[in-house]
Amino acid sequence: MRAGVLYGKKDIRVETRENPEIAEGQVKVKVAWTGICGSDLHEYNAGPIFTPTEDNPNPLTGVDRPVTLGHEFSGVVTETAEDVKGIQKGDKVCINPLITGGVHDHALVDMYKGFTFVGLGSDGGFADYAVVDQKNIVKLKDSTSLEIGALVEPTAVALQAVREAELKFSESVAVFGAGPIGLLTVIAARAAGAKDIFVFDLSDTRLKKAEEVGATHIVNSGNENPVEYIKKFYPDGVDRTFEVAGVPVTVNQAVDVTRPRGMVCIVSIFEKAMEFNPMKLTASGVRLSSTLAYEPDIFEATVKMIESGQIDPSPIITGHIELEDISEKGFEVLVSDKTQAKILVKLSGEK
Amino acid sequence: MRAGVLYGKKDIRVETRENPEIAEGQVKVKVAWTGICGSDLHEYNAGPIFTPTEDNPNPLTGVDRPVTLGHEFSGVVTETAEDVKGIQKGDKVCINPLITGGVHDHALVDMYKGFTFVGLGSDGGFADYAVVDQKNIVKLKDSTSLEIGALVEPTAVALQAVREAELKFSESVAVFGAGPIGLLTVIAARAAGAKDIFVFDLSDTRLKKAEEVGATHIVNSGNENPVEYIKKFYPDGVDRTFEVAGVPVTVNQAVDVTRPRGMVCIVSIFEKAMEFNPMKLTASGVRLSSTLAYEPDIFEATVKMIESGQIDPSPIITGHIELEDISEKGFEVLVSDKTQAKILVKLSGEK
Repeated sequence: MRAGVLYGKKDIRVETRENPEIAEGQVKVKVAWTGICGSDLHEYNAGPIFTPTEDNPNPLTGVDRPVTLGHEFSGVVTETAEDVKGIQKGDKVCINPLITGGVHDHALVDMYKGFTFVGLGSDGGFADYAVVDQKNIVKLKDSTSLEIGALVEPTAVALQAVREAELKFSESVAVFGAGPIGLLTVIAARAAGAKDIFVFDLSDTRLKKAEEVGATHIVNSGNENPVEYIKKFYPDGVDRTFEVAGVPVTVNQAVDVTRPRGMVCIVSIFEKAMEFNPMKLTASGVRLSSTLAYEPDIFEATVKMIESGQIDPSPIITGHIELEDISEKGFEVLVSDKTQAKILVKLSGEK
Repeated sequence: MRAGVLYGKKDIRVETRENPEIAEGQVKVKVAWTGICGSDLHEYNAGPIFTPTEDNPNPLTGVDRPVTLGHEFSGVVTETAEDVKGIQKGDKVCINPLITGGVHDHALVDMYKGFTFVGLGSDGGFADYAVVDQKNIVKLKDSTSLEIGALVEPTAVALQAVREAELKFSESVAVFGAGPIGLLTVIAARAAGAKDIFVFDLSDTRLKKAEEVGATHIVNSGNENPVEYIKKFYPDGVDRTFEVAGVPVTVNQAVDVTRPRGMVCIVSIFEKAMEFNPMKLTASGVRLSSTLAYEPDIFEATVKMIESGQIDPSPIITGHIELEDISEKGFEVLVSDKTQAKILVKLSGEK
């Protein structure tokens, strides 16, 4: 079968690999669509970072050779181990790629006690077939599009962020950054009943997309100061703010636009420390939370809300490409063209 | 009358001032006891900072001459303006010194929209008499000690911190720093039903005091690593952590000892920015809050809990001094002797 394997910085190769075999408790999936994620991009630009290389096995999965990337994927079950119950050949599924190292029976704690993802710590979805543990399988309705199925994972990240921000019905929201996760956060906040959603970005194309998915106010922060803008509408600040840009200036702005005892949720990944004065919180009464992956019930809720039509992540798709083009038309385009949001890689391409 | 007036760095002078007169809505108090606070110390060491000087009036109070310090005080009412209801000559009272600039009918928001204190932004309690607005007066029972009345204000800071940390009954707590506010935080956490209270400090004397007021575990962080220590008892971390030391290392340790979705509450004041990586929160699931002063209902609750015996802040008193000795036996001792906690300055000395 074909597989997109990361060998090193800017070095992802589509090669032929053995068709994987299932072991006890496992399920084999014919992959339909796989999204390229920011973390993949990170691995591509500077990796391998979280992905294992030969003689450097992932501590949770034991996998030690260059892995097939791809953790946002959907497909159809082709085979199940004998002991697997409730999943059958022909089922449409998406993958919850989270692998936790915790020994607790507490999903939240387990998540923070060492984790990796199918497609980072083990072989993932940029391949014709993937084999995963039964617990990583989430069933979709027959009527659900497998293209949308590939969007469940990043959408779940946004739903978890809404939970971590403690967003309540009818509250006001600000989102810094209108990349894929920023856009999905707008969609999730809207589904949670936010009454106003302010989105800030430097790209008018992204902002237009944000408006399309539910932003009530879009502002190019290169032209207008976000803090001054928000204060015109909410002098005390908005209730919840999502920092999805990942730069120090937006962390500070996020605190500045939020009301006392409101919450700023850090959704982005910071590679290095920044200058931060805790007095920023003391003087504003703003609280700080962050989000990581998703609890299992959030993943399930994401599927349900997509299938019921409460959430439609499809507008974030900006491209479909063939696996063979993953480097040139996938990663390289995402690196250079900031108007792109989600690029889906076609495997079987089944609907 | 006598008044302890701050003129500049290390320059507090006990001088004779006019006995103040009341205006509309005001109450005159014969001061009994006034505590020296960390903020006073800060003004003394590096001030004037928040205190106004001549030609540099406080924007909220309009007061522009060197002010009489002291915002933790109690006394007996000697005179009330005609329009003041519910407060009478002879009433024992303590002062809620918070002056807010907000125009809202929302105490929390008002607190963050510009604030100062009686005794920092206007004349305070290191004087024989003080005149304050009716809204700054909080009545005590006749049976309540005025010495303890002078401790209501710092105790209210600790109760507000418990609120901001969202501490719930039967949870576990860590406190970094066993100065006066750290000790009061232990007392407040105990009153809130914390089942375990770990206290870290570099002074064994302070730690002993912490044990006296309710710490279940005291650890000298010069000898033992706080993170390793806590993990022996709570491998996932404690529920709530109070950072009352005000240094970068304890901020990081506070996050490290707290469980996913637990809360670190910053109670201390940071004078400058520190290196902080938001990933610290992302990787741990710990949330960050902070506290500032007190909402009116917390101040009232503090008085009630002291009067009912639920809270006894008296062990934090480590000295009583005369007003004339405020510089030498008060401020200078607090600067040099870290085993000191709360020093009370005697005015009338009434019980």
